[in-house]
Amino acid sequence: MKKLFILCVSLMGVAAAFGQEALWSKGPSKSPQVNPDRSVTFRLAAPDAKSAKAVGEMGEVEMANKDGVWEGTSGPLESELYRYSFIVDGLELNDPSNVYTTRDVSSVKSVFIVPGEKGDLYSIQDVPHGSVSKVWYDSPTLGMKRRLTVYTPAGYESGDEKYPVFYLLHGAGGDEESWMELGRAAQIMDNLIAGGKAVPMIVVITNGNAEQEAAAGYSRENFNYEPAMFRQRRGDRALFTDSFRDVIKYVEDNYRVKADKSSRAIAGLSMGAMQTFAISKDYPDTFDYVGLFSGMGEISRAEDKQKMLDMQNNGVKLYLIICGKDDFLLPRVQNYMRQLDEIKFPYEWRETGGGHTWRNWREYLTGFAPRLFK
Amino acid sequence: MKKLFILCVSLMGVAAAFGQEALWSKGPSKSPQVNPDRSVTFRLAAPDAKSAKAVGEMGEVEMANKDGVWEGTSGPLESELYRYSFIVDGLELNDPSNVYTTRDVSSVKSVFIVPGEKGDLYSIQDVPHGSVSKVWYDSPTLGMKRRLTVYTPAGYESGDEKYPVFYLLHGAGGDEESWMELGRAAQIMDNLIAGGKAVPMIVVITNGNAEQEAAAGYSRENFNYEPAMFRQRRGDRALFTDSFRDVIKYVEDNYRVKADKSSRAIAGLSMGAMQTFAISKDYPDTFDYVGLFSGMGEISRAEDKQKMLDMQNNGVKLYLIICGKDDFLLPRVQNYMRQLDEIKFPYEWRETGGGHTWRNWREYLTGFAPRLFK
Repeated sequence: MKKLFILCVSLMGVAAAFGQEALWSKGPSKSPQVNPDRSVTFRLAAPDAKSAKAVGEMGEVEMANKDGVWEGTSGPLESELYRYSFIVDGLELNDPSNVYTTRDVSSVKSVFIVPGEKGDLYSIQDVPHGSVSKVWYDSPTLGMKRRLTVYTPAGYESGDEKYPVFYLLHGAGGDEESWMELGRAAQIMDNLIAGGKAVPMIVVITNGNAEQEAAAGYSRENFNYEPAMFRQRRGDRALFTDSFRDVIKYVEDNYRVKADKSSRAIAGLSMGAMQTFAISKDYPDTFDYVGLFSGMGEISRAEDKQKMLDMQNNGVKLYLIICGKDDFLLPRVQNYMRQLDEIKFPYEWRETGGGHTWRNWREYLTGFAPRLFK
Repeated sequence: MKKLFILCVSLMGVAAAFGQEALWSKGPSKSPQVNPDRSVTFRLAAPDAKSAKAVGEMGEVEMANKDGVWEGTSGPLESELYRYSFIVDGLELNDPSNVYTTRDVSSVKSVFIVPGEKGDLYSIQDVPHGSVSKVWYDSPTLGMKRRLTVYTPAGYESGDEKYPVFYLLHGAGGDEESWMELGRAAQIMDNLIAGGKAVPMIVVITNGNAEQEAAAGYSRENFNYEPAMFRQRRGDRALFTDSFRDVIKYVEDNYRVKADKSSRAIAGLSMGAMQTFAISKDYPDTFDYVGLFSGMGEISRAEDKQKMLDMQNNGVKLYLIICGKDDFLLPRVQNYMRQLDEIKFPYEWRETGGGHTWRNWREYLTGFAPRLFK
């Protein structure tokens, strides 16, 4: 076996000689480089460029040309996950030295994490990891098979315990990938569970676009992408919220779950908050924990008021409404809370800093998950 | 509910007004555009650029500036999956109008599919889809938990049938993502099974880098990427091949599988072919189907010859060696076949066109999977 290993190594040399080294090279520049003081240095080899800068969630970082390699360093940054790109002579591109990108609707950007408190929580640590599965469930209500992300906590496969289920919904333009890719939900759940802050639970991340069977790249449209919100809705088709029973049925039929109200939670961001409002109202004896992240409901109709009161009578342990003070939806969220006050529906309200951003939604998940199923 | 839907739509307008439209726009250019004659048009908005071209597996396509948008069209292309990027004034970037990329070792490129025979096989079709799970198995041999991709065929969750298992290994610099991302293994298996060409089976895609717990981005190194082949191997650590028993144990303990030799297959490409050679030899009563894609073994030692003969005596239904005529490993593969001839070990040899490429490996998988478990 040692001999074979040495053979493998020598073959890599052969492969390199055959011109495959381009695959294996990160280019001449290390970028991004997170420095001990939490500043970040960006580098780009572009000898012929006239100007270059890095722009993104860390702000704008001017870069200067040193022997053909442009380089710039940010100030010390808060521990967080940041998305960014380069602008070179007016042209935007991702960092060619960084293999990591995330997609937010149709925007694909380079990404890095500054370690520390939040950055560590969003990172893969030396803790037991849950499994992440992409499965297809049947939705008779929507008339199609649809894709679902299921996180099962570490120990699920090898044990026989039953787990509570947390349904987690994305916003407009998102899909069943968003909470994993932009929300770092697997890392957050792994770390919260390992730290004893959240109980082990199954997290189910749905695709809330009724016209779409799966996320971009995983549907029959393959590599022909169109953001979900620009699709024409078929007038005769049910809404995603109407079809939520199909999701619950699939999960409870196929996973070892505690199938009772005290073991079900639902939360969503933005459009997903509106869906969370609608689902918790329309299935009023289903969830003990409800979270509306940066979004709201609308209960002007008597029928909806009655459903909310039915839910209240059935008992809800937590109905959390949380929104950033700079969020463009805040006035509508406040209007919804006035409607809840009118019918004396109890809820918990949290106003945070910031706006309608994944930075907030990661924090909201981090705060919400530890309060479930206790 | 209708009202809420209308509210959602109006909120998208509000969000757009608040400057989030950048997320939802694919930019002014449709690119790439696959035309009815299988030519492909590339477009890039770069008003200030002096030159632009598209380069990749489809060859080089010159682009011309029309009112600030560079455009160029390839000749008609064979139905296939293609990776490409743009070169603008000497700077390489991915197509900003295309949200789809794949990573090959440390090279991230834009990707498209030209439909037709192979392109359709590599695409998501209107057929039942298997589940794809990323799970963590315990490897006592390597002293760590390690990440594994498991494809379970459509119907696995809802049924109680037991399935055969096909272990599929990547090459140097690859990982447990490669066969899915570059190899389109989930699409190929879905389509072969739905078409009745392959029997329903579980496909297990391992990470063959003994020093690595998981693919780039999914290990404790998080977004600090270093290709696996440049790592220092710890001298005291077992090889991946030595640890393969841990993979089999995890799979057979946790999935509904037929746990006998006639229901196990193994194949790998390049470094994975060398590992397939070693594993099938060192576990000589384990696999009825063995595939070496663009790679070979080495049986100069008497001990290894004996193991090969043991395997032969136990019975192997298919020992396939397949390699492209332009592959830099072909002379070594031929040398291995001479060694097999010397000990009269039966195998099947297939020489194809092409070289050491994913294009070939997708075709090899397409040809190999239908021959298993029949």
